[in-house]
Amino acid sequence: MRPALPATLSLLVLALAAALPAPAADNAPPKSMQELLDASKPSDWRRLDPANTLYLDLATGRVVIELAPGFAPKHVANLRTFAHEGYWNGLSINRAQDNFVVQWGDPAEDDKARKPLGSAQAHLPAEFTRGAEGLSFDRLPDSDGWAPQVGFSEGFPVARDPKTNTAWLAHCYGVVGAGRDMAADSSNGSELYVVIGQSPRQLDRNITVVGRVVQGIELLSTLPRGTGPLGFYEKAAQRVPIKAVAIASDVPEAQRVPLEVLRTDTPLFAQVVESRRNRRDAWYKVPAGHIDLCNVPLPVRTPK
Amino acid sequence: MRPALPATLSLLVLALAAALPAPAADNAPPKSMQELLDASKPSDWRRLDPANTLYLDLATGRVVIELAPGFAPKHVANLRTFAHEGYWNGLSINRAQDNFVVQWGDPAEDDKARKPLGSAQAHLPAEFTRGAEGLSFDRLPDSDGWAPQVGFSEGFPVARDPKTNTAWLAHCYGVVGAGRDMAADSSNGSELYVVIGQSPRQLDRNITVVGRVVQGIELLSTLPRGTGPLGFYEKAAQRVPIKAVAIASDVPEAQRVPLEVLRTDTPLFAQVVESRRNRRDAWYKVPAGHIDLCNVPLPVRTPK
Repeated sequence: MRPALPATLSLLVLALAAALPAPAADNAPPKSMQELLDASKPSDWRRLDPANTLYLDLATGRVVIELAPGFAPKHVANLRTFAHEGYWNGLSINRAQDNFVVQWGDPAEDDKARKPLGSAQAHLPAEFTRGAEGLSFDRLPDSDGWAPQVGFSEGFPVARDPKTNTAWLAHCYGVVGAGRDMAADSSNGSELYVVIGQSPRQLDRNITVVGRVVQGIELLSTLPRGTGPLGFYEKAAQRVPIKAVAIASDVPEAQRVPLEVLRTDTPLFAQVVESRRNRRDAWYKVPAGHIDLCNVPLPVRTPK
Repeated sequence: MRPALPATLSLLVLALAAALPAPAADNAPPKSMQELLDASKPSDWRRLDPANTLYLDLATGRVVIELAPGFAPKHVANLRTFAHEGYWNGLSINRAQDNFVVQWGDPAEDDKARKPLGSAQAHLPAEFTRGAEGLSFDRLPDSDGWAPQVGFSEGFPVARDPKTNTAWLAHCYGVVGAGRDMAADSSNGSELYVVIGQSPRQLDRNITVVGRVVQGIELLSTLPRGTGPLGFYEKAAQRVPIKAVAIASDVPEAQRVPLEVLRTDTPLFAQVVESRRNRRDAWYKVPAGHIDLCNVPLPVRTPK
């Protein structure tokens, strides 16, 4: 047998689960994440809301993004307008910086050459944080160096500060944000980036996060890296054309991608996190006893 | 101006540095990482040791890996033998799992079909941790959820446990390890993986780490993801051929890649870390006041 590990979601491990020693306390061996998901109930999952789902269509396929209006209501409203009016259709991915971000929007350097924004707002307030009041928050017991508390709200990885009573979306792999210039309020959502490397949490509270990729991240993370400053493509021909960006609710139902994501406010999710915090399968010799917010998987499935 | 940010190593920021308000305490504005590197002395850098440098040559270019004999002496010795005898030449990259690892070695499923290991050892002891005794360690003051202490030893990101007096290499982006089967001592270094996503620190102390990529990681991180279990390529034609793997000291000097990496045991390095822990350039509105071990950049340059 070839050394197939390190493994995640390991089929190997599933096959070997029968060989796991049962813990002394009870007869049930700890379940792997996959076993927990296989035993989940329909109510452990939630369907993506088409009004909060953005499709980024490339020649290679579709990237599905879940928007977070609870954290960036004004940016999300603007994104809906941009998408509805076809703003990004024919524009391009202009930047791919290794271990950092992929970014798309209007490549024009000259303001006069830029595509008109249509009826979208040109200026929006910064939406870096929100009040924590009234926000559901399923807190991880694990420590975090970047924020006093971390956990999940509305299915997103979130940090919270009880002193300021604020919360914000955390820059984990796959998170999507709105590029800006020097001024805090200089983003309008026309320029978007997605994290494709080690979580750049230093961006937290410095930029408006609008959602996260739930399917198709590999279409972005495998793009050739740009060789210009900040990973911008140096030649126009290197840019990756965007076929279309649409809000799912604007797309005929037959052409939508039906997806369910695991709820983060359930006992099952807490068990999934624990199965990853302390791996109990036979491959792992030393369970970590810890999980980082950005290492928690957020499973997605196609409903049966 | 197009919204070019989030930015790292920002040229923009350099251009704007003159506009930074000087801190009250003294007249020198805090330096950016690039300014610190520009002002570095030759002694702040170290040349890669050709005996500890592995070249992975693909059709697209060369990946340069620094080996860590201080942490995995038996595996590194075996890697030198494999490379010296051309073991990997003509083998392939067989796995690319998004946000996890790229892995190469012998794709043969059947033991009988596998390429002979030559004079390399078929079996090695696990080298998951080492004694911390006698190991230089420049500790980060920042907290870490995965280990009691983190910092840098011999230029590598390292965790340390004073209770057990052990240290180990941390699974950060670009780190290279030796794949294994279920048994702790089932790796021999013939199968190697590199981290291409969020740091999978749960692997720490569970597998032997042998080094890290210092140049060319983008040749691996952009590879198409495999669609089989664990990201293995499903068809032989999808595998990425390896032209050659060599130890730099076996390569004629004119064909080597001269590289210097920033020393991690200097006052300058501490300043670089601080420049990233608290970004002082005008783009950042809220300095993080923290840095994660795996977010610390380890600069590499071509000597003048």
